[in-house]
Amino acid sequence: MPVMTPDMLEAFHREVFPEMQLNLKVDHVDHESIVVSMQADARHLRPGGTVSGPTMMELADAAMYFLVLAQIGPVALAVTTNLNMNFLRKPEPGRMVAKGRLLKLGKALAVGEIGIFSGTSKDPVAHATVTYSIPPKR
Amino acid sequence: MPVMTPDMLEAFHREVFPEMQLNLKVDHVDHESIVVSMQADARHLRPGGTVSGPTMMELADAAMYFLVLAQIGPVALAVTTNLNMNFLRKPEPGRMVAKGRLLKLGKALAVGEIGIFSGTSKDPVAHATVTYSIPPKR
Amino acid sequence: MPVMTPDMLEAFHREVFPEMQLNLKVDHVDHESIVVSMQADARHLRPGGTVSGPTMMELADAAMYFLVLAQIGPVALAVTTNLNMNFLRKPEPGRMVAKGRLLKLGKALAVGEIGIFSGTSKDPVAHATVTYSIPPKR
Amino acid sequence: MPVMTPDMLEAFHREVFPEMQLNLKVDHVDHESIVVSMQADARHLRPGGTVSGPTMMELADAAMYFLVLAQIGPVALAVTTNLNMNFLRKPEPGRMVAKGRLLKLGKALAVGEIGIFSGTSKDPVAHATVTYSIPPKR
Repeated sequence: MPVMTPDMLEAFHREVFPEMQLNLKVDHVDHESIVVSMQADARHLRPGGTVSGPTMMELADAAMYFLVLAQIGPVALAVTTNLNMNFLRKPEPGRMVAKGRLLKLGKALAVGEIGIFSGTSKDPVAHATVTYSIPPKR
Repeated sequence: MPVMTPDMLEAFHREVFPEMQLNLKVDHVDHESIVVSMQADARHLRPGGTVSGPTMMELADAAMYFLVLAQIGPVALAVTTNLNMNFLRKPEPGRMVAKGRLLKLGKALAVGEIGIFSGTSKDPVAHATVTYSIPPKR
Repeated sequence: MPVMTPDMLEAFHREVFPEMQLNLKVDHVDHESIVVSMQADARHLRPGGTVSGPTMMELADAAMYFLVLAQIGPVALAVTTNLNMNFLRKPEPGRMVAKGRLLKLGKALAVGEIGIFSGTSKDPVAHATVTYSIPPKR
Repeated sequence: MPVMTPDMLEAFHREVFPEMQLNLKVDHVDHESIVVSMQADARHLRPGGTVSGPTMMELADAAMYFLVLAQIGPVALAVTTNLNMNFLRKPEPGRMVAKGRLLKLGKALAVGEIGIFSGTSKDPVAHATVTYSIPPKR
């Protein structure tokens, strides 16, 4: 149902964000939800081996970007207007997974919520709500 | 008045976050406010040469971390519990400045607000409120 | 599983908040989720007959309060430290339903997310994340 | 400089929100800031005589509404899209003051920050950032 597949999203991302430092994989996307994963490495770690807060915010922001683009097509100029993140638990190093869900896809604004998971726990390590502004005449 | 000077904050930061990718400079700190600057480079840019949202969130988070540590001393384990950022204008590439102000310094939680500025404009490019949890028995 | 049932929550609420203006009903609560409903009346309406934003924030805040108390018992002094709400759609007048879910129940902080629904739509009219501070030695 | 004075704002408010329960007074407004005060009474209090969180959210939301209208004129349909509030200290009963400042006044979105004060303390009891959506063709 979405207009962009995981492969299309990843290819578009590599093209427009060649400097992006997270190695992101779109595991699933449909008309209302997405799963994006990344492998945290030394650059993303904090004392004690935990993944940094900014890395989790970047992952949440990217997951929402993909979720919106999957619905409206490759509009590079969709921009974040608000991101609110609660940091809940100490993440483990290694693979992190973002599970996102659209709350609203309007003409001008899209809003979603994203849970961030690490290790094998079912409890999120962080949770974000993200708003994107969608450029007119898409 | 603060218990840590800009030099002490920068030295502590290099020691505990050796992998940190932002080259941060503490320009000023007192008992309620802080100014932190960074030089954005290619890694922090987005299409069109604008500084990325996650870079601004990382700068805001670091500025609040320094502002709290300046008051309570080098407690590496102070952790962010909430960060809310509004993205207001397209930042210019180059130097970015974060101006932070303590709203509350409690026993368990510290809350502050941070404006992010770029170029010569007096209007902020982004604005964050950040909450840190302070470990007990400091 | 929770230590307080819907009836206990409603009775406690009437006792400690006798001036509370929302007529709240706890329809369901378990160890991680809650459903609370209210009947919006003239006091809660805005031009055009829509329910006001502050009414929805009050409902979300109360739903999270009940969800926390259901887990830890009648601790009147649990207080909200952060509430972030996105307003998504125009609510209809009449019955509103809040569906809440615990994201974290820690010793000092509890975090949850709340969707607000009105009419027969499956799409939320608003969405909040709420943090409560839990008093020590409960 | 603003297109609406305090008297015009209060008159417009009484006209379009006749059911509004806060007795608000616009003490000052200019092209970038506003001061709004209210007298909290029994309906706004919580156990221990403190002003309720929802009352403070309603005050912050109204202050931002006035601040936006003062710039763009009496557009009843400006609506809140996001409100984030940090609750910092226990407010005292009695008069509360909201001091607001515009962070951005764009074509589609306006963003501001609001500090809430009570009693004689210079420290805010709460702090909000609020986003309003501005209807097109104003």
